[in-house]
Parts: sequence; C-alpha cells; structure tokens
Amino acid sequence: MRQILIIGSGKSSAYLIKYLLDKSISENLFVTVADIHITTTIKQIGNHKNFKAITLDVCNEAARNEAIKNSNIVVSMLPASMHIDVAKDCIKHRKHMVTASYVSPEMQALNHDAIANNLILMNEIGLDPGIDHMSAMQVLDTIRDNGYEVILFESFTGGLVAPENDTNLWNYKFTWNPRNVVVAGQGGAAKFLQEGTYKYIPYNRLFRRTEFLDIDGFGRFEVYANRDSLKYQSAYKLNNIKTLYRGTIRRVGFSRAWNIFVTLGMTDDSYTIEDSENMSYRDFVNAFLPYSPSDSVELKLRHQLKIDQDDIVWDKLVELDIFNSEKKVQLKKATPAQILQKILIDSWSLAQNDKDMIVMYHKFGYQKNGKKHQIDASMVVLGDDQTYTAMAKTVGLPVAIATLAILNKKIKTPGVQIPITPEVYQPILKELKTFGITFQEKEVPYLGYNPLNN
Amino acid sequence: MRQILIIGSGKSSAYLIKYLLDKSISENLFVTVADIHITTTIKQIGNHKNFKAITLDVCNEAARNEAIKNSNIVVSMLPASMHIDVAKDCIKHRKHMVTASYVSPEMQALNHDAIANNLILMNEIGLDPGIDHMSAMQVLDTIRDNGYEVILFESFTGGLVAPENDTNLWNYKFTWNPRNVVVAGQGGAAKFLQEGTYKYIPYNRLFRRTEFLDIDGFGRFEVYANRDSLKYQSAYKLNNIKTLYRGTIRRVGFSRAWNIFVTLGMTDDSYTIEDSENMSYRDFVNAFLPYSPSDSVELKLRHQLKIDQDDIVWDKLVELDIFNSEKKVQLKKATPAQILQKILIDSWSLAQNDKDMIVMYHKFGYQKNGKKHQIDASMVVLGDDQTYTAMAKTVGLPVAIATLAILNKKIKTPGVQIPITPEVYQPILKELKTFGITFQEKEVPYLGYNPLNN
Repeated sequence: MRQILIIGSGKSSAYLIKYLLDKSISENLFVTVADIHITTTIKQIGNHKNFKAITLDVCNEAARNEAIKNSNIVVSMLPASMHIDVAKDCIKHRKHMVTASYVSPEMQALNHDAIANNLILMNEIGLDPGIDHMSAMQVLDTIRDNGYEVILFESFTGGLVAPENDTNLWNYKFTWNPRNVVVAGQGGAAKFLQEGTYKYIPYNRLFRRTEFLDIDGFGRFEVYANRDSLKYQSAYKLNNIKTLYRGTIRRVGFSRAWNIFVTLGMTDDSYTIEDSENMSYRDFVNAFLPYSPSDSVELKLRHQLKIDQDDIVWDKLVELDIFNSEKKVQLKKATPAQILQKILIDSWSLAQNDKDMIVMYHKFGYQKNGKKHQIDASMVVLGDDQTYTAMAKTVGLPVAIATLAILNKKIKTPGVQIPITPEVYQPILKELKTFGITFQEKEVPYLGYNPLNN
Repeated sequence: MRQILIIGSGKSSAYLIKYLLDKSISENLFVTVADIHITTTIKQIGNHKNFKAITLDVCNEAARNEAIKNSNIVVSMLPASMHIDVAKDCIKHRKHMVTASYVSPEMQALNHDAIANNLILMNEIGLDPGIDHMSAMQVLDTIRDNGYEVILFESFTGGLVAPENDTNLWNYKFTWNPRNVVVAGQGGAAKFLQEGTYKYIPYNRLFRRTEFLDIDGFGRFEVYANRDSLKYQSAYKLNNIKTLYRGTIRRVGFSRAWNIFVTLGMTDDSYTIEDSENMSYRDFVNAFLPYSPSDSVELKLRHQLKIDQDDIVWDKLVELDIFNSEKKVQLKKATPAQILQKILIDSWSLAQNDKDMIVMYHKFGYQKNGKKHQIDASMVVLGDDQTYTAMAKTVGLPVAIATLAILNKKIKTPGVQIPITPEVYQPILKELKTFGITFQEKEVPYLGYNPLNN
C-alpha cells in the first residue's frame, strides 16, 4: 500500500483525511496522521482500516525522520513556520511534499535540491492561497489563449458565517484564526494598481476605502485591500496590467465599525498594556480616551470619534459589551490586540450548530482592438457542520486531490511549486466541481475605475 | 594649558566654542575642534589664539586615539550613534567626556569602567535632553525638600520660529533636523499617566489629542504627547506620581493640519513609492487618494478627509504647493516621509535673517495634608541670527559650562551621568541665567485633569 503521512491535524483536516480514506481501497492508500495530540474528532474521521493516528513531536528529529522515511508522500498541515524541517527531511528521504502555506524564502531555497531529486514540493494549495491561484489562472490563461490582453484583475476572499447563522450586528463570526482578523492590514501601507496608477492606503484608512460586491442569492459584501496586491503580478504574468487589486471580503458595514478599533489603537500588537490582567473591558476602552472623570467612557468615545447617537456602529460596540465594568481582561502583560481578541471571542465564536461560509470573487478585465470586456467569477461554499466546515473543505480538498495526483504522477513537474500551471489547476479544479466547489462566471460590461472609459 | 577637544562641529557648536574661547585666557584653555569638514563659520567663531581646527575622520582609529590622548577632556558633538567609539577611547586614555545625546545602552554599559577610572561621561546635557532635566529636577527637589509630595509633572519643549519671522500659515519653520519633524510620533503608541490612569494614543490620533499652553507675551501654543512620557519616571524619583506627561510644543493649529499628512499616509518611512523620481507633487498626493479621473485631486482629498472649503487647514495645504503638477519630487526610491520632507523644506526653511525660538514649559503639581498646589515654569529663548541660534545657545551653553565645571572639578561624581543631581544642575542653571536662559515660575491653582478636585 502507498503510505500517505499527514503531519499536523488542525481545523482543516476533516475533508483532507476523508477524501483520502474514501479513495483508500480503490487507490491502495494507507493514511497516517501524526500530531503531538490526536483529537477525538480525528479518531472519528479516521475510523477506517486504512488509517492510523500516531503521536509525533515534530521537533523530535529522529521520530520525524522515521515517520517521513516510511511514507511515500508527506502532507504538512503544521503552522507555516514549521514546514521547513519537514521539507528538508523530505528531500533527504526523497519524498514529495504538499502544504497549503505560503512559500517562505527558506522553502524557495530548496527548489534546486527538489529538482535535482525529481521531487515536488507543492505549496499554497489550500483556499487562499490555493483555489484563488487555480481559478484565476484558468481564466487568465483562457483569455490570453484567445488573444486578448488582460488589463484588470481583482481577487477577493472572505471567511464568513453562513447566512442562516448570521445573527450579530457585525455579520461576522470567527471561522478561522481570530488573531489574523485582529491584526489584519498592519505592517505597512496597502499597495495596489488602479488604471495604471500605484495607490497606497495607510492602515488608518484601510477600512474606510472599501468597495462593494454583489453575489446573486447572497446579497452585498464589501472588500478592504490586502497589504500587497502586487505579490503575484509576475507569477500570474500580469506585468503590464493596469489594475491589480486583492482584498478581503466582509459583510457591508463591518469595516466602518472595525475602523473604530483601529482609530482608538485597540488593534496594536506592538506593546503591552500596564496591569492588563486586572482591567475591566471598560478600563481597556478608557485607556484610549482622554482623562475626564466627569464624563462617561461612552460619551468620551462618541465625542472623540464623532459618533452620532443613532449611528448603527454604536450598537455594534454595545453588542460586544466593551463598556462592561465587571468583565475582566484576565490576560497578563497583554497587547491591545490580544485584549481585543479576547473581547471579540466572547461575541464572535461560532455556536454549536453554526455553519461557516467561504466567498471568493474575481474580476477579469481584458481587451482586443480597443474593445474592453469583463468576466466576474464568484464562488460561495457553505459548511456542513463544525467539523466539515467550508474552510476545511476548501483548504483540505485541494491538498488531498493534489496529494493523490502527485502519487499517481498526474502532476509531475518537480521543484518548489505553487498551483498556477494547467498541469496542476486543470485536474484539481475539475475534481473540486464534483464536490460543489464551483465558480459562477458571467460576462459584464467592462467597468474598471475610469468612468471616462464608458 | 588645558586641552579641550570638541569632535564634530554641527549647527549647535557656535555658543559652545564661543563660551570656551571667552574663558580661554582666564581659565587657561586651548580649544581644538576636530571634524571631517571644517566650515567657514567654525573658522570665524574660532578666530582666537587659543583655538585650532583639525581635520579628523572619527572612523580613523589611530587619528582619533591620538587626538583624544592629547586632550584633557573630550566633547562629542557627533551624531548620537557615533559617540560610543569616542567614549571607549576616553576610558582607555582616562579622559572625561561630555555629550548632549541620550544615553544609549552601549554608553550605559561603560558605567562600571568609568567609575573604576574615576571618569565622568556626562550625557543628555543640551536642551532636550538637558535643560529640561536640570530645570525640572531643581523644582522637584525643592518641592520634596519642603515636605510636599509631587503628584503631577508635565514637561514640554519646542523648537519654533521667532514671532517676528513667523510668516507662514503653519506658524512653523525648520530650525533643526527636518526628518525628526516628519517622523515624529511614529513607532508605537504614546504612553503617559493621567490622574493615576495609564493612557495610550495611537499615531493616527496623536495630533488630534493636543493640549493648550499660554505663555505671557508669547501667546498660545499647543502640545502633542511624546512617545514615552514615563522614560524618566524612575530617574526623577516620581514612581508614585499620578500624572506624568511629556510633549512637543507647536503653535496652535499646526497639529490639526499635520494630521492630514498622517491620515493620508504621507509620513510613512517604511516603504518606497514606485517611480518617485518622476512624480509631481500632485502625483504624490494623488497616490494616497482613490482613482477617479473625473474628479480633481483637490476634491478627492477634501472628500476623503471631509475638509470644508472654508477650513483654514485647506489654505495650509495650498500654501505648501502640494497640488503643483509641475514641481517634480526628483528623489529616487524615496519613502513618503522623504518626499514630504522635500516638499516642506521648500516652504519651511529659515530665510537668511530669520531667527529661531526655543520654548520650554513645565507644570509641577504637589500636595501636603490634602492641599494641592501647582507651579508652572516657562522658558523662551530667541536666537540672535542663523549662527547664534536659540537652539545652538540652549544646546551648546550647558555642554560648555559642564565641560569647564568638570575640568575645574566642580562636578566630580564619576560614571555615566545625566544632569539630574544638584552637584550638576545648580552651578549650570545659575550660570545659564547670566546668558538669559531663565525660567519664569508662577504659582497657579492646581488644575490637574480632574475637575472633581476643584
């Protein structure tokens, strides 16, 4: 039997394991999940004769090598920073490897060794990065194959709560790592291209410069810009493109309310708050407002940020219970971002039966002989339950399909890869359709950003 | 004769050299200025038989050692990062040393060696840091000697243009390093204490949380908070203080207008702008605004920041000529902060006959038996001309007086020092008075920040 080793078994493992076990008889696969702690959920998913779970500390070099040596292919679902040791062992033992993480410089540096050993180190093959690469490249390549020039590409992704469980004023719940949500957009200005002009948005304006999206049957969404929209400009072969913009999807109104936290300084992760442990939520808010004991924290906040008393953003703040003087932070030496995260988890955690929703939206603008065209493509995936989430499905299935395709030599090009070639995206996108992961494409009038074009 | 070696001869050297030469006959001093480039101005100031200027590259270890070995005391007016090599040589050759810069961790690490060799490494003895330490500690020590408890200390300094040359709408010209003005407040939230509560202001709010100050004969000023108001809490023995706040002084209205640059992202120094060299000033502004070719850059800016057409901040922007489409940035791979600095230098450089002005303001709150008191102390120093500036006077004279006092063994305590002990501040403040550097002290009702106190 062909041995598949999956190292790490986090939230996105369910569909990955299920897919491989469903194929395990016909494809002659044995799946081993190795983690420092094997959960009951993993044991339930892996209730199959071609499955075993082993306890493995990846920092234990001998145990890690032994596990890798005995496999035919390795899937690393570890945190991104921990892939590199696994990757080096894979080269040493001549095993292919698959991850859903961004290619780090250390990973990229293995490209030569991978090629020399005819090994595939496939990365960025989850949702975002992953399905975004594949679905975009399929359309972009088709447009170019038909002799058109691509002039606009915009791509947006969001992990949200399913409409039926969308029960708070923010229209948002945490379906993934809350920390990433709290610190999103920090670390420098967002940079992108609009109609040939480079544009920069500083963090303090990021959530005030949103755009709207409409998706049939799901209503209106908004988008704020990612840090670096130009990251894949060269990989996607878009060097002469006029508009290149990538962003994150939220429900309309989220960003305007979130900007209150940004403006007050509550998302800062660079310093710790004095005596954070004994603070109330109200004390936390008050730390970012002027001293004035004759005024309430509420009025000081309204006044500082000029919030009208009938503005819906106010209700969003109240809903989070941030003015509560009884609830304590109870985090030692915490940064503002850590404290805010704790407050938000109180309100934004998924309930037992809540389902998540993944939304992806691409816009492609292209032209020939001065005539401009546009295709909009959107994908919505709903979760089944808290194990088989939309996130687990859209991350885990591409990883699983790629793993089997590499084993079966359908994907053959060696080296450190991301899924942007037809060899990779064609079979995977085709099979994802059978799981309901599909894009609705429609031709729309070219809009761009220049009303003088129209 | 006693040899004084001054390494580095920048903008603040004039009074330093003049003071020592004026005393050189009676005190038997010979002054050597060593710099990689000796200016005509320095030669004019040093036109005296007890003076010589030598060319010295401080990176040349042999030459540096030779110069230090032949001196009795060394004054380093080099950029702060370059003091440490000089300081190590001073210890090797057993020479005292004086600087106006902040004590770096590397400098502090020499404390043990300095004490072991009975040497004084006196730092932070210019204006800010320098006169602020000395003037504050003199009042604080007096308050405490009289049995009072200090409950509030606030300290503000600003380098401004003299009222007679205050000719632009910003009421500001560059009298010191422009770069420090452009990036002021960056790198983390401002932190301070108000009435026992820690307060934090993020960069995007720093210039909207100002306070006012009035100085007799000079009118009203405003203050924005420094990054770390608590830096000297322990050194000043203020560990139980309720309010501790340090800030920078500007004329009223500066900060509200400056905040436009902060909000747009123009003060960011962390990334470079694409093709900055060929941009016009107008292009630079447009890079921070949405794409919309049917609207002017002016209207987009007004709309984004909600600036009314009759708001004075608009006139301040226009005065800087930032909407000019002809003027080019002409800086390669420049950061937003570097480009903004260039634009500001066009408008804010001192004219030939302009004079500068230094303003310092302290507030001291203290109590005994529940009764609260307050002393406000303010200092204004005006420059004479572009060589004998107020900045050169307030930085150079304390350095010069301390240098002679150390030579004359009036200041004797060895180690890495800052001027916070009576041994240092008493003689220096006394002599500074003879140069017109004096504080106007007045008792005022205790104000604090708590109206319920009154």
